Amino acid sequence: MNAGSGLAAFQVFSSGREARLAIRRGDCLRPTAGIAPGMVQGNLAILPAALAHDFLRFCQQNPKPCPVLATSAPGDPRLPALGDDLDIRTDLPLYRVWRNGELIAEVEDVREFWRDDLVSFVLGCSFSFEEALVEAGLPMRHIDCGANVPMYRTSIPTRSAGVFHGPMVVSMRPLKPADAIRAVQITSRFPSVHGAPVHIGLPEQIGIRDIARPDYGDPIEVRDDELPVFWACGVTPQAVIAAAKPEYCITHAPGYMLVTDLKNSSLAIF
Amino acid sequence: MNAGSGLAAFQVFSSGREARLAIRRGDCLRPTAGIAPGMVQGNLAILPAALAHDFLRFCQQNPKPCPVLATSAPGDPRLPALGDDLDIRTDLPLYRVWRNGELIAEVEDVREFWRDDLVSFVLGCSFSFEEALVEAGLPMRHIDCGANVPMYRTSIPTRSAGVFHGPMVVSMRPLKPADAIRAVQITSRFPSVHGAPVHIGLPEQIGIRDIARPDYGDPIEVRDDELPVFWACGVTPQAVIAAAKPEYCITHAPGYMLVTDLKNSSLAIF
Repeated sequence: MNAGSGLAAFQVFSSGREARLAIRRGDCLRPTAGIAPGMVQGNLAILPAALAHDFLRFCQQNPKPCPVLATSAPGDPRLPALGDDLDIRTDLPLYRVWRNGELIAEVEDVREFWRDDLVSFVLGCSFSFEEALVEAGLPMRHIDCGANVPMYRTSIPTRSAGVFHGPMVVSMRPLKPADAIRAVQITSRFPSVHGAPVHIGLPEQIGIRDIARPDYGDPIEVRDDELPVFWACGVTPQAVIAAAKPEYCITHAPGYMLVTDLKNSSLAIF
Repeated sequence: MNAGSGLAAFQVFSSGREARLAIRRGDCLRPTAGIAPGMVQGNLAILPAALAHDFLRFCQQNPKPCPVLATSAPGDPRLPALGDDLDIRTDLPLYRVWRNGELIAEVEDVREFWRDDLVSFVLGCSFSFEEALVEAGLPMRHIDCGANVPMYRTSIPTRSAGVFHGPMVVSMRPLKPADAIRAVQITSRFPSVHGAPVHIGLPEQIGIRDIARPDYGDPIEVRDDELPVFWACGVTPQAVIAAAKPEYCITHAPGYMLVTDLKNSSLAIF
């Protein structure tokens, strides 16, 4: 709580590389939301090579919840497509290490947990499209409330691949109808970060019994003049991996994402 | 009801020009829906030059309900942008002629009603985007029921210009939520034929008290697993002109549209 650490904790970087270097030095142990405006952030999953092909197949078959931004060669900690200097073992602020589905460590650096057969997957996240929605003037209530976006397990199936299977998880943002239409247009431009909504307006149709009780994140109000709008969510692959209980796995800690050198605007397809 | 006239009445043409020639010859007195698949059809409004500038300004300010496909020089019955040979006085199956807001004639040819100061406006219509929705496999209930699309006066204001003012009229198509999202994407590609929906899901928010009682067209069912999706409608300028009671005016008779040489697919912006 001293002025020095407060300054460091809320520093904003103008590039993904600068943010990663600060994180790598251990100067930036905080959730990455807002850390480098305009830059793409990603969810991380690291799996043994024996499971990697099935997981990649799962992602390829379910691109809305699992949009792959990059994947590594086995044992290689680099992901040059996302940053020349990027080292996936040191460049996130906080990791979780799992063995047979159990959390065995939460650490700031996974070099000592590395193995030569590990394959990294970086998946797009909703930060990118939320930035576009905010720039378009659409209100994002969970941001305005300082809350996590509410997320729900649904009855929407995914297409399974090997041990990876489970229902789609969605995030929800309440919007007035005309804003919801605009949000469909804007997020349709970003297929690599979940794309257009998967549902709108009738939560019970996708197996959500109580909109006020999300399965993940925080509940937020849906007002009478608003519709709940649902996007495929990056928690889907996390939940699928958790259910598969792989013998070994490393993920980001929730909210502590990988900051890349890609610009959000570069993901727009038209 | 004899075989000969039946054959003529349901003939389908492969080009706009062929359809117009048959109509010009008087061989095709029927609503134009489906007469030339793939070709753009348009709503017609013909006004004295003294009112034309204000009407064009009204359309320019309200492009969703009033998308102008073409407008003529005063007194000139041609619209070469829509067809080389097009004569706006003879090429629609049925016209209505109005004086001071009163219907004075319903005729198949308006050459005897022509004046040297008349300016033609052809406005895009929902036939074009409905074709794209049907091609994408989305159900259009009013078409399946053989009904007219239900239309409603709303509380959505338009921006007035001179004597032209009044509320937006919308058409409604019920869709399941995922289909509604797809419909937003598809119709966003067609800004010159009403574009994306203006509202979805909460009719009371736009001043519609009873979805079962449209102001124009036929009522159709909205099922429990569907949302009503609302598009700006070409009846808006018709209602605005009717309210303005211009000293002279010619329009198409409802359903008897201008068939052009433009392809619906050519209107897609991406």
